[in-house]
Amino acid sequence: MASQGHSSDKSVRTSLDNLLRIFTVPEAPESTLGRLDQSISQNMAGFLQQHIVAEEIDLAEIEQDFTDTEIPESALLVSEQTDFLLDKVVAQSVHTSSPSFIGHMTSALPYFMIPLSKIMIALNQNLVKTETSKAFTPLERQVLGMLHRLVYSNDEAFYQRWLHDAHQHLGAFCSGGTIANITALWAARNRAFGPDGEFRGIAEEGVYAAFKHYGCEGGAVLVSERGHYSLSKAADVLGLGRAGLVAVETDDLNRIRPEALRAKIAELTEQGIHPFGLVGIAGTTETGHIDPLDTLADIAEEHQLHFHVDGAWGGPTLFSEKYRGRLAGIERADSVTIDAHKQLYVPMGVGLVLFKDPAALNSIEHHAQYIIRQGSKDLGSNTLEGSRPGMAMLVHSALKIIGRRGYQLLIDQGIEKAAAFARMIDAHPEFELITEPELNILTYRWCPPVAQTLLEGADSAQAAEQRTELNELLNRSTRYLQKTQREHGRAFVSRTRLTPKRYDGQPIVVFRVVLANPLTTEEVLREILIEQVEIAKDAALMPVRQQIEQLCLR
Amino acid sequence: MASQGHSSDKSVRTSLDNLLRIFTVPEAPESTLGRLDQSISQNMAGFLQQHIVAEEIDLAEIEQDFTDTEIPESALLVSEQTDFLLDKVVAQSVHTSSPSFIGHMTSALPYFMIPLSKIMIALNQNLVKTETSKAFTPLERQVLGMLHRLVYSNDEAFYQRWLHDAHQHLGAFCSGGTIANITALWAARNRAFGPDGEFRGIAEEGVYAAFKHYGCEGGAVLVSERGHYSLSKAADVLGLGRAGLVAVETDDLNRIRPEALRAKIAELTEQGIHPFGLVGIAGTTETGHIDPLDTLADIAEEHQLHFHVDGAWGGPTLFSEKYRGRLAGIERADSVTIDAHKQLYVPMGVGLVLFKDPAALNSIEHHAQYIIRQGSKDLGSNTLEGSRPGMAMLVHSALKIIGRRGYQLLIDQGIEKAAAFARMIDAHPEFELITEPELNILTYRWCPPVAQTLLEGADSAQAAEQRTELNELLNRSTRYLQKTQREHGRAFVSRTRLTPKRYDGQPIVVFRVVLANPLTTEEVLREILIEQVEIAKDAALMPVRQQIEQLCLR
Repeated sequence: MASQGHSSDKSVRTSLDNLLRIFTVPEAPESTLGRLDQSISQNMAGFLQQHIVAEEIDLAEIEQDFTDTEIPESALLVSEQTDFLLDKVVAQSVHTSSPSFIGHMTSALPYFMIPLSKIMIALNQNLVKTETSKAFTPLERQVLGMLHRLVYSNDEAFYQRWLHDAHQHLGAFCSGGTIANITALWAARNRAFGPDGEFRGIAEEGVYAAFKHYGCEGGAVLVSERGHYSLSKAADVLGLGRAGLVAVETDDLNRIRPEALRAKIAELTEQGIHPFGLVGIAGTTETGHIDPLDTLADIAEEHQLHFHVDGAWGGPTLFSEKYRGRLAGIERADSVTIDAHKQLYVPMGVGLVLFKDPAALNSIEHHAQYIIRQGSKDLGSNTLEGSRPGMAMLVHSALKIIGRRGYQLLIDQGIEKAAAFARMIDAHPEFELITEPELNILTYRWCPPVAQTLLEGADSAQAAEQRTELNELLNRSTRYLQKTQREHGRAFVSRTRLTPKRYDGQPIVVFRVVLANPLTTEEVLREILIEQVEIAKDAALMPVRQQIEQLCLR
Repeated sequence: MASQGHSSDKSVRTSLDNLLRIFTVPEAPESTLGRLDQSISQNMAGFLQQHIVAEEIDLAEIEQDFTDTEIPESALLVSEQTDFLLDKVVAQSVHTSSPSFIGHMTSALPYFMIPLSKIMIALNQNLVKTETSKAFTPLERQVLGMLHRLVYSNDEAFYQRWLHDAHQHLGAFCSGGTIANITALWAARNRAFGPDGEFRGIAEEGVYAAFKHYGCEGGAVLVSERGHYSLSKAADVLGLGRAGLVAVETDDLNRIRPEALRAKIAELTEQGIHPFGLVGIAGTTETGHIDPLDTLADIAEEHQLHFHVDGAWGGPTLFSEKYRGRLAGIERADSVTIDAHKQLYVPMGVGLVLFKDPAALNSIEHHAQYIIRQGSKDLGSNTLEGSRPGMAMLVHSALKIIGRRGYQLLIDQGIEKAAAFARMIDAHPEFELITEPELNILTYRWCPPVAQTLLEGADSAQAAEQRTELNELLNRSTRYLQKTQREHGRAFVSRTRLTPKRYDGQPIVVFRVVLANPLTTEEVLREILIEQVEIAKDAALMPVRQQIEQLCLR
């Protein structure tokens, strides 16, 4: 089933007739392709029903099936390639929709996405231009309007005025949150250093000329130290340099400290650096905490900063009547990122950025003669990407089929399940909750009772030293437990490294849990803890356990 | 079928049980979803078999179906939404795979893409990290290797060494050619202004500090005036400013003029601007012409420029033994963009950039603790995007199922069909060929015999003036013809504006034809000309026709 097959009968297949056939729509459902379609559906259903996260196969071993770089001269039959895919790709994939896959933000999909995606693939529309997208263009604009309304709640007249306007945009569809964040900061940068007298603006003349014209030594965007790495990527790409993304200290709950923010702004200004952007986080990637958005909006207003909210994860919390208050202030943001392939439950490859001011995206407008001509309704004039698929159709479908109350339920049960899991961890003698969940994300670690006693004990120079040593041992244990559980393949939690205040900023390795799959029950969570306790008894971990005990009983 | 439905029985649907059900795999193919899947398949087959390009409906009218921005409280049934999609979206889409849709680079798909895409959607892998992609990671690397080999033809040992290396990358998958071009120029910029002594590099310190450190007034990338608009977008995004993308004059065949390029480089250097990049085009978007890549490689070497080839369209010409020579020199490029959703015939949303030097992408490397940790094989560390779908699976399938010889046939017949169409236009009394095709793209315009006589007539000041006036009238006609033909919906050619040397750089509006669909026959092309001749007789065009005649017989 590898790749080539140079037999002469195979070479016949590449004749033009055969080639034309693969581009021709099969007439009947009983055709070869029709049958193949059926068999793929069954195989996929089988894979998705099986609730194990991943087969225990080493990546290096899997690589053996993907080493050939020669493009085969002759073609494989579709059925041969399908067999290969089912055997070597599907069977060796990660079951991201398993209820015990709770380690990343990639989660389960509503099953209706599979048949509906077929419409998108078969139509193969290109959203860059109405000539290749027709109805998909107003559909995409409608979805932008729906989510704009979710965030900004403008009145009907506003949406009637701007929704389909050729010159203004309520936002931009992107391949994901990273491009959405870059788009927001790109627009912010271009507005902050716009045309001014002789100066034709940063979009035209670049960063160097802009800073010289405006008389500054640099430009800065501020964000808490928990900001997503896409923001530092954005700072690099946009020519500010990673140093142009200025990290601000957080409090015990991983929220930006407003007084530290004010101090940083003053410090930058003093250095001749122009702070023009501020990013608030609605759901940090690691712990799911939310910055005080309303306070940030005040500070942004005061210092005339573009206020962007990275709600890639937490944005959809707005669907919940009960919890949307946690994002209070988001409606004051100049721009907001929401990832559709996260908590809107749409397949991978779609995020979006919304702008309060429909004219904001004009600062990044591009035109060309053969495409996206001025005055057209072509969406390509105001997006970072060019040719783009019709993913908006799937977001539209999710919003309609799940509905506001459906999303509310998904959000509420995620937040409440996380709270319940936090209590379960708190009550368990062998675990320590590291971050209390604000949304549906929490972190914890394995920490045997003897270690907990030491960690909670009296303060002294000697105890502090012991604790540092103990944390290092626990870090090793957590790394081992997480890796081993992943390899077992029954469940998956991820891990990251935090610097909690209670341990004086010492790096602490933690399990990270993201509870977005509605099929994840408390029973599943209980079993994950049981498995971790079991793994902690592994012979391989014995020396570390002993060291922990010796240290704690010293 | 609009959006809301607040009846109490509908609100019941949003109960948690119902919600869990939509996330649960249907057990049997005879389930509701199974039947829906069948009916979508049949509907799509029906749509794709129907050979009209688009229904004649005005965009403003279509917008009426997409005006509601309120997210429905209660959910629609999947079948209700499907009906809406089939009725209002599919039926009002553009039939991009119609043999008479020859206006854009979005073309037909091999039909096997539809069932195979289901695997990608159902698995919902995320390529940012091996923990969410497993087998998809080595698969994506393999595809990069296959296309790298197509371009650079390194030996087996090279690919065995680097294909699955954790620290080096043969290229990057992207959502399309725009991101691919930005990625190439980003890496080029970061290498050209890299760390140097105290200076920590442009990635860290930004454009302003970099230019100050290196003592230049600007940075420039050179490209012919036919460069794709994504390059000027890249220059804006990357902080060079659009002025940092320097356009170089082209010759009669829309190819960059090497002597003009050398002069520009000298001019920039004199102005204290550092030219660090040169883009060669392998298939201009408008006319499909190819720059003299080998000569550009010499110049790049001489001036130490990063040499990028934008082969978004023309790259796959390398599959053809007969025509690959037209891209000679591409193997000397530092980086090459190829769009998979163009001439690799993969669904919308995937392009890639290849790098000659596997270490080149290290200049844009990003890491984070919770994801893409240093030393892992996570692909997210060296891509502009973050979370990404497993489109590589579809490229892999296309390369295997179509095979090298299949692609060769596709390329050859496209180029030869364009040559035949050019002869057809040349021979036709009512049309004028504007650009001779080098690949499968050509431009022409409607030009009645009387006009052709004037255009080809003797040179005099008076004649030149008459020609200018005539060209303006012809421009109006071409615009009308193209728009009207599109509205009729039976065929689609696009239009653009060129500045041919033979008309002294006067802007000339032309029909633009892209021949990538193997089902487009010469008969289809003949009919397109017949329809255009018919439209030229429209009453609406009568005044312009009369003006043309008066002018020519003056």
